[in-house]
Amino acid sequence: MTLVDKTGSVDARMWKLPQSLRDGLDGPEYVRVEGNAHEYRGMLQVKVERLEVLKADEVEEGDYLPETEKDRQALAAEVVSAGQTLQNDHLRELFARMVADEELWEAFCSAPAAKGMHHARIGGLLEHSATCLRVARAVAEIYPEVDRDLLIFGAVFHDVGKTQELSWSSGGFAYTTPGRLQGHVIVGDRIVAAHVGAIPGFPEDLALEVSHLMLSHQGELEYGSPEQPKTLEALLVNLIDNLDARAAMFLETTRNVSAGGWSHHENPLKRTLYVPEREGGAAQDAPGN
Amino acid sequence: MTLVDKTGSVDARMWKLPQSLRDGLDGPEYVRVEGNAHEYRGMLQVKVERLEVLKADEVEEGDYLPETEKDRQALAAEVVSAGQTLQNDHLRELFARMVADEELWEAFCSAPAAKGMHHARIGGLLEHSATCLRVARAVAEIYPEVDRDLLIFGAVFHDVGKTQELSWSSGGFAYTTPGRLQGHVIVGDRIVAAHVGAIPGFPEDLALEVSHLMLSHQGELEYGSPEQPKTLEALLVNLIDNLDARAAMFLETTRNVSAGGWSHHENPLKRTLYVPEREGGAAQDAPGN
Amino acid sequence: MTLVDKTGSVDARMWKLPQSLRDGLDGPEYVRVEGNAHEYRGMLQVKVERLEVLKADEVEEGDYLPETEKDRQALAAEVVSAGQTLQNDHLRELFARMVADEELWEAFCSAPAAKGMHHARIGGLLEHSATCLRVARAVAEIYPEVDRDLLIFGAVFHDVGKTQELSWSSGGFAYTTPGRLQGHVIVGDRIVAAHVGAIPGFPEDLALEVSHLMLSHQGELEYGSPEQPKTLEALLVNLIDNLDARAAMFLETTRNVSAGGWSHHENPLKRTLYVPEREGGAAQDAPGN
Amino acid sequence: MTLVDKTGSVDARMWKLPQSLRDGLDGPEYVRVEGNAHEYRGMLQVKVERLEVLKADEVEEGDYLPETEKDRQALAAEVVSAGQTLQNDHLRELFARMVADEELWEAFCSAPAAKGMHHARIGGLLEHSATCLRVARAVAEIYPEVDRDLLIFGAVFHDVGKTQELSWSSGGFAYTTPGRLQGHVIVGDRIVAAHVGAIPGFPEDLALEVSHLMLSHQGELEYGSPEQPKTLEALLVNLIDNLDARAAMFLETTRNVSAGGWSHHENPLKRTLYVPEREGGAAQDAPGN
Amino acid sequence: MTLVDKTGSVDARMWKLPQSLRDGLDGPEYVRVEGNAHEYRGMLQVKVERLEVLKADEVEEGDYLPETEKDRQALAAEVVSAGQTLQNDHLRELFARMVADEELWEAFCSAPAAKGMHHARIGGLLEHSATCLRVARAVAEIYPEVDRDLLIFGAVFHDVGKTQELSWSSGGFAYTTPGRLQGHVIVGDRIVAAHVGAIPGFPEDLALEVSHLMLSHQGELEYGSPEQPKTLEALLVNLIDNLDARAAMFLETTRNVSAGGWSHHENPLKRTLYVPEREGGAAQDAPGN
Amino acid sequence: MTLVDKTGSVDARMWKLPQSLRDGLDGPEYVRVEGNAHEYRGMLQVKVERLEVLKADEVEEGDYLPETEKDRQALAAEVVSAGQTLQNDHLRELFARMVADEELWEAFCSAPAAKGMHHARIGGLLEHSATCLRVARAVAEIYPEVDRDLLIFGAVFHDVGKTQELSWSSGGFAYTTPGRLQGHVIVGDRIVAAHVGAIPGFPEDLALEVSHLMLSHQGELEYGSPEQPKTLEALLVNLIDNLDARAAMFLETTRNVSAGGWSHHENPLKRTLYVPEREGGAAQDAPGN
Repeated sequence: MTLVDKTGSVDARMWKLPQSLRDGLDGPEYVRVEGNAHEYRGMLQVKVERLEVLKADEVEEGDYLPETEKDRQALAAEVVSAGQTLQNDHLRELFARMVADEELWEAFCSAPAAKGMHHARIGGLLEHSATCLRVARAVAEIYPEVDRDLLIFGAVFHDVGKTQELSWSSGGFAYTTPGRLQGHVIVGDRIVAAHVGAIPGFPEDLALEVSHLMLSHQGELEYGSPEQPKTLEALLVNLIDNLDARAAMFLETTRNVSAGGWSHHENPLKRTLYVPEREGGAAQDAPGN
Repeated sequence: MTLVDKTGSVDARMWKLPQSLRDGLDGPEYVRVEGNAHEYRGMLQVKVERLEVLKADEVEEGDYLPETEKDRQALAAEVVSAGQTLQNDHLRELFARMVADEELWEAFCSAPAAKGMHHARIGGLLEHSATCLRVARAVAEIYPEVDRDLLIFGAVFHDVGKTQELSWSSGGFAYTTPGRLQGHVIVGDRIVAAHVGAIPGFPEDLALEVSHLMLSHQGELEYGSPEQPKTLEALLVNLIDNLDARAAMFLETTRNVSAGGWSHHENPLKRTLYVPEREGGAAQDAPGN
Repeated sequence: MTLVDKTGSVDARMWKLPQSLRDGLDGPEYVRVEGNAHEYRGMLQVKVERLEVLKADEVEEGDYLPETEKDRQALAAEVVSAGQTLQNDHLRELFARMVADEELWEAFCSAPAAKGMHHARIGGLLEHSATCLRVARAVAEIYPEVDRDLLIFGAVFHDVGKTQELSWSSGGFAYTTPGRLQGHVIVGDRIVAAHVGAIPGFPEDLALEVSHLMLSHQGELEYGSPEQPKTLEALLVNLIDNLDARAAMFLETTRNVSAGGWSHHENPLKRTLYVPEREGGAAQDAPGN
Repeated sequence: MTLVDKTGSVDARMWKLPQSLRDGLDGPEYVRVEGNAHEYRGMLQVKVERLEVLKADEVEEGDYLPETEKDRQALAAEVVSAGQTLQNDHLRELFARMVADEELWEAFCSAPAAKGMHHARIGGLLEHSATCLRVARAVAEIYPEVDRDLLIFGAVFHDVGKTQELSWSSGGFAYTTPGRLQGHVIVGDRIVAAHVGAIPGFPEDLALEVSHLMLSHQGELEYGSPEQPKTLEALLVNLIDNLDARAAMFLETTRNVSAGGWSHHENPLKRTLYVPEREGGAAQDAPGN
Repeated sequence: MTLVDKTGSVDARMWKLPQSLRDGLDGPEYVRVEGNAHEYRGMLQVKVERLEVLKADEVEEGDYLPETEKDRQALAAEVVSAGQTLQNDHLRELFARMVADEELWEAFCSAPAAKGMHHARIGGLLEHSATCLRVARAVAEIYPEVDRDLLIFGAVFHDVGKTQELSWSSGGFAYTTPGRLQGHVIVGDRIVAAHVGAIPGFPEDLALEVSHLMLSHQGELEYGSPEQPKTLEALLVNLIDNLDARAAMFLETTRNVSAGGWSHHENPLKRTLYVPEREGGAAQDAPGN
Repeated sequence: MTLVDKTGSVDARMWKLPQSLRDGLDGPEYVRVEGNAHEYRGMLQVKVERLEVLKADEVEEGDYLPETEKDRQALAAEVVSAGQTLQNDHLRELFARMVADEELWEAFCSAPAAKGMHHARIGGLLEHSATCLRVARAVAEIYPEVDRDLLIFGAVFHDVGKTQELSWSSGGFAYTTPGRLQGHVIVGDRIVAAHVGAIPGFPEDLALEVSHLMLSHQGELEYGSPEQPKTLEALLVNLIDNLDARAAMFLETTRNVSAGGWSHHENPLKRTLYVPEREGGAAQDAPGN
C-alpha cells in the first residue's frame, strides 16, 4: 500500500484490514490515516492503525496532489528576469511574449513536468525549467562558442508543451487527448511557433533554429524527437534537460532512504540506488533532506 | 562506375580509362558515353568505349535527373478526382485547398518521394501518393469500420512535407535546411495545419485526427514519428505507405535483374533479391519490364 | 476479473465475493454470472451480483470459446472459389488439393489464428485468411508485376501451420508440442511441401518459391522466419499479413471503447488506442459495431 | 591485395603494378606470383615482385580453393565409427543411412562449413562436425542427464544443410538459390526428415526431437532458427556449435599473427585479437602453427 | 505459494488459509508444513494441509537455505588436485595461494554461484567451478593450441568474485554493497590481482592475461564485462562458463517436470522447456532424477 | 586525402598526382605540402600543388601530432588548485597524491582524451578534465544535495586510465596492450585504488564510493562500465563527462564549417551538423573560430 499526499509518497502496511477493504480498492482513493512511521530495511514505512476512505465532499484536492516544496513565485521571478538578460532582440521579445501570455504562463507555473518520471508534482515544470536555466547559465560561460540567448530560451521553454500534454486539475495527473495524439514535443513547438509568428520581422533562420531546438530536445528519435539535435544549442539543451531529469529521478527515489541504505529497484532509473553514510553528521546532509 | 539518367541507373565498366580520368572524378559529373550493353552475372552492364565529361553549358539538366515513366498528368487527375469523392465536407474542402495551392501542388507533382530509398525520381512523390491512394481505396472497402475520407486524405498527403524537405532543381536530389532541422513529418504537419487553420468551422477534433495521422505516418518513433499511430486510419496509412515503399524498393532494385537472377545485396531492403524464371514467356512478364 | 465467452471478453467487478472465492481461483473456470453492465471510464464493465462456479458436466464448451461472428461457410466458399481463379495449373491444383484434404480443411475452417494476439477465436484463421485474400486481390491489380497466383496462394495459406501449432478443443487455445518444437512457420511449410510432393510434374523452381513464401511470411528473423522475404510475392504476403493482423488488433482492442474514449494500454499494439467521436451519429458507426 | 590458395590467405603488396593492372581487377582472379614474404606489424605479408593473371585453361582449381589441412579420411572414419556407438536403434539407423547416402556423404566430406565466417575451406564442414563430435562426447560424460545419442547425432549433423546451401565447385564458395530462399537450417531439417521418413517404425516423438534440434541449432531467432532450443540436447548442440565456431574464428584470424602481436579488427569476432608471447619457446607453440 | 528448503523448491497450494495468513505474508518466512505432493499439469505440487509460521529461535538456518546435493568435499578435492597439474610455475603457485587463503577458500566452497539464475544454492559456486573445470580439461585436449594452464585457472576461478558479491549467511541470498557498487567481475579481478602481486617474479604479461580473463569472462559488455574476450583462453572460459550456466538453468527448471511435460515459461532461459518421454524406462533417466 | 598537423586536420585534393604516388600510400605518411586553401561546399579544402613524402630523419614528430591550443600550464594549475579546495581530508589527500605522482601527472597533462572521438590531441585529457571540473563546480552549487568533493574528484580523474590505455609518443595515437586487455575504466580504477591504499585511515566506504564512480563513469554497461552509476555523484560525473564529450564532438567537427553550412555526416555524432549564420558579424563568432 502506498500513501501519497502533496509532500510525497511513502510505503505503508496495515495488519488489521477493516472488513470493507478485505477485497481491495477499486483504484486510488482519498483516505484518512492514523499510524506510526518507522524505518524498515533502510526505508521509511508507515504502520497504519486506522484507515478511512473519504467521500468526495470531504476532500480538499489541493491537499493531496503532490506539489513542489520550492517557492513558486521566486522561481517564476528568476525565470522572468533571465528572459530580460537576452541580448538578441527577437529572442528577448519572444521570451517576453511567452511570459505575458497569461493562460500559458499560469499553466507553466502550475503544470507537473511529467506524469510519473520526475518532477511529477504541481509546479514541477517550473522547478525543472528553472534548474535547467541555472545549469544553462553556467554552461554558456564555460563554452564561449554557445549562443547564450538560444541556450537560455531552450533551457527554460523546451518542455512548454507539457502544459497541454498533461492535465492536473481533476485530482491526478493524466494525459490529455492532444497529449496522446501529438505529444509535448509537437505541442511545444506549435506554442512557440505561434508566438514567433506574431512577432514582426522575426528572422526565418532564427525561427528555424528555435523550432529545431524544441523538436530535438528529447535527443533521440526513440524518445520522441523527430530529429536529433544538429546545432550546438539544441545539443546542449538536450544534455542539460537530461542532467536535471536524472538528478531529480535520483533525489526523488532516495527521498526516504536512510544513510547507508539502498532504494527499491523499481524507479525511473531502473536500478537500486545508494545513499552513502557521510562522515560527520551524515543524517542532516543526506540527499532528500 | 554507375551511369544514371532520367530513365534509371546501370552498372558500367571501362577498360581503357583516358589519362585525364586516371585519378578519379571529384564527384558525380555529367558525361557523354558510347559503348555496349551486355548481361553480367544476371544484371545489365555497360561496357564503355568512349566517355567524355561535359561542361556545365553542354548539359540539359532535365535529361539527367531520373524521372517517373508514368503519365504525371493522369496521376494528378486521379488524385484530384479522388479528393472530390470525400463525403466529409471539411476534409473535402481541405483536400481541395491543398490542390488549389498552386505552388504546393506544382511541387507535389514534381518532387521525388525520397533522396534514395524509393521513388527517388522527378514525379516520384506523385507516383507514390497515387499508388497509396489506390491501395487505400481497396482497404476502405475491405474494412467497413474505417473512415474512408480520412484514410484517403492520409494516403495521398502523408508525405506532402517532402516538397520542402528535398530540393530537386540543382541537378540532383538534396536535403534542404528545413528538411534537416525539422524533417518532412513536421513540415508536412505544418503545411496541412496551415490549410486547416484557413477553413472556417473546421472541427477541432478532426484537425487533431488529421494532425495525428500526419505525425504518426512513419509508424515508429525510431523512424521519425513523434507518436505511434493510435487511430485506425493512422495505423492503416502507415501500413499502406510501408507496403508501397517496400514494393517499390523491390521493383527498382530488380529492374535490371534478368529472370532467374539475383540482385546485389546493397539496396534499401538490405538483402539480395530474386527474380524467378516464369513459365511461358518469362522475359516479357518479369518485374521491371 | 475478466469474463470471456464466445462473443468476446469484458471486465467485471464483484463487491460481495462469496466466502468460497475469498482466496481466489486456481485458474480460469467456467462460471454462471448475473449482474449489470455499465460504462466505466469509456469501457464496458459488468457489475456482478451473483457468480457460481460450474462443474465440468454443467458446461457446453462451445458456448464459451470465443468464435467469429462472421459466416464461416460464406468465408470458406469465398476462399475455395478464389482458388479456382488461379491460372497457373500447378498452383491451381495445389490449392485444390489443400481444400480437398478433409482433415486439413476442417481444421483450417475452425482454428483460431493465434493464441491471443489477434483473431484468437474459433474460425479466426479462416477469417484472417479470407481478409488477406481480399487485400491480395486488390494489390495484384495495383501492381501488375506481381504473380497473382502466387500472391493469392500465399495470402490464403501462409498461416496454415496454425492448424497444428494450436489446439482448440479442450476448452481453450493452447500450443501443441509440435507447435512449440517446430512452430507454425515450419509446420505450414511441411504441410504445403507434402501436397506439392504429391503433384506429378510440379516444377522444382515453383516449389522453391512457394516454400520461400511460407518460410519468410513472418518478415523478419526475430519473428520466427528463417529467411527474410526475397521475392516480390513473399514480400507482399508478409506486408498483407501484417496489415490485417494490425487492423484486427486495433478493432478487437477497441471493441468496447465508446466514441471519444481510449483503450487500455495492455493490448497487442502496446499503446493506448483512440476511437474518435464521429460527426452525425458517431455511436452507430464506431469501430467494432 | 589478398592472396588466397588452398593453404590459406595472406596480405600482399606490389610496388610496380604492371600497366595492365593499373585500373584494378574486375573481381577475384587466378594469378601466378613471385616475391618475398616478411613480417609487417606482427602479421605475415608478401611483397610481390612479379604477378601474372592466368587464363582459365592454365588453372587447376583444386590448387586454389582453400582446403583443410586435416586428414579428411581420418575425420570421416571418426564420424562414421561414432555413429556405430549409438545405443538407440532408431538413431543409429538414421545415422547409418545418412552416411550411406553416397551423394550426401560425399558432399558432407567436401563442403565448406561457411562462405566466410569460419571453416570456409574444402572439408571445413567435416572438420567442424568432427570437432563438435569430440566436444559432445566429453559433454555427455560430464552431464549424465543428457541423451548421449541425440547429442552426438546433433553435434555431427546440425549443419548438414550446408551441403546444399553452398556451392564450392566453380572456383569459389557461393550461396545456391535454395540456400538463399530456404537457408541451411531448413534444408538440413528436410534432409534429415527425408531419411527419418524412410525408416519404418521411427517414433514420432523422437522424429520431433530430432527436427527440433536441427531447427533450433542457431540458438536464437535472429540467427535464423525459427525456434529457440527447448530440450537439453538442442540447447547443448547450439552451445557446442558456438564454441567450435568461435574457437575457429580466433585460430583462423590469428594464423599469421606472431607472438605478442594483435590481429586486424576486421574478422568474424569483430574485435582485435591477441596472441600472447609464451615463456620457453613461444614461437613454436603459438596458435596457428 | 512456493516452498523452498535446502533440497530445492516446489509449488504449493493451500485451500483453507488460516485467518492469520488471510492478508498475506510480509515476505519470505520460515514455515512448518504438512500435506500431500501430487502431479499437476506435469509438475510436482504440494497440497498443504497445515502450515505454521516459525519464530526465529525455532529455525535452524542450515535446514532451509538450498544446498547442493553433491559432495562438497569431493568437489573441493577435485579442484585442488587440478591446480597441482598446472605446468606453468607461476600459475601453479597462484592457484595454490588461492586455495591456501583460508577465508577465501572457505567462502569459495560455500558461496552460491548466483542469487537466482543458476546454482543458487550453498556450494553452488564450487559445483559450477568444478563442472567448468571438467569441460575445460576436455576442451584443452581437443584444441591443442590452447594454453591449458590458463584455461583451467580461468575455468575454476572466473567467478571467485561471487564470494564477496553475495551474502548467504542471513537466511537468504542477497547482494552486498561492494557487490552492487563494483560487481563480481571487478571484485574477482581484484582478489586474483592481490594474490598475483604477492608472488615474486610473476611475469607482467601473464598477470595481464590473467586479469583480462577475469574481466572478460561475461563475454559481452552488456553482461558486465568491461572488455570482450581477446585471447583464446578468455574466449573459451566465457564459452565454457556459458555452457554450464545454461545447462544448469535447464536442469534446475525442469527438475519437477515429468516426462513428456513442459516447464513454466518464467525461468532464466525465458522459454518453456520440454522433457521428452524416453523409450524404455524414461522415468528413471529423466533429467533431474 | 586528409592532411593532419598539430593544429588540426583538413580535406585536400591534388590533381597532378606524381608518378610515385599513383598507386597510393601504404598508410599515413609525413609529407611536405604546397598549395592553396579555398572553401568547397562550406568546408575548408586545400588544393595541393606540390607534395613530397618525408623520410624519418626529416621529421620533427612534435610538429605533426595534433595538440591542444589551450595553455596547458594554466589548465594544470586550475586543476591543482581545485584539489586544494576539497573539504574532506581523505579526498583532498588522495587528490594531492595523484598530482604529486610525477610520472602520472606528466602523462595526465600530455595524454589525448581519446584515439579519435573527441579531444584526440596532446593535452586533450587535461583539457577535457579541466572543462568537466568547471561544469562540476557549477553543478555542485545548483544541487546542494551533492557531495562536492566527490563530484570534483570524479570530474577531474574519471578518465585517468587513458594515461595507460593510449600511447602518444610514436608519431600517432594508439591503444596499448593493457588498454586493449583491461581498458581505461579498469586501469583508472586501479590507479586510484593504489593511491587510496597508500593513505593511512582512508575510510573503506569512501574508497568504495570512489571506486564505484571510476567504474561506472561510462554510464551504461554497453559503453564499458561494469556497473551503472548508483550514487548521485557517480550519476552526475557520467552526465558531465557526456556533456563535455558531445560538446567537443560538435565543436571539433564543425571547426572548418563556415556560417550557414553543414558538416559531413561522418563524425562521432553520426549526423550532419549545422553552423547557423548569426546576425551582426556571424563570421567572427562562429563556433570553432
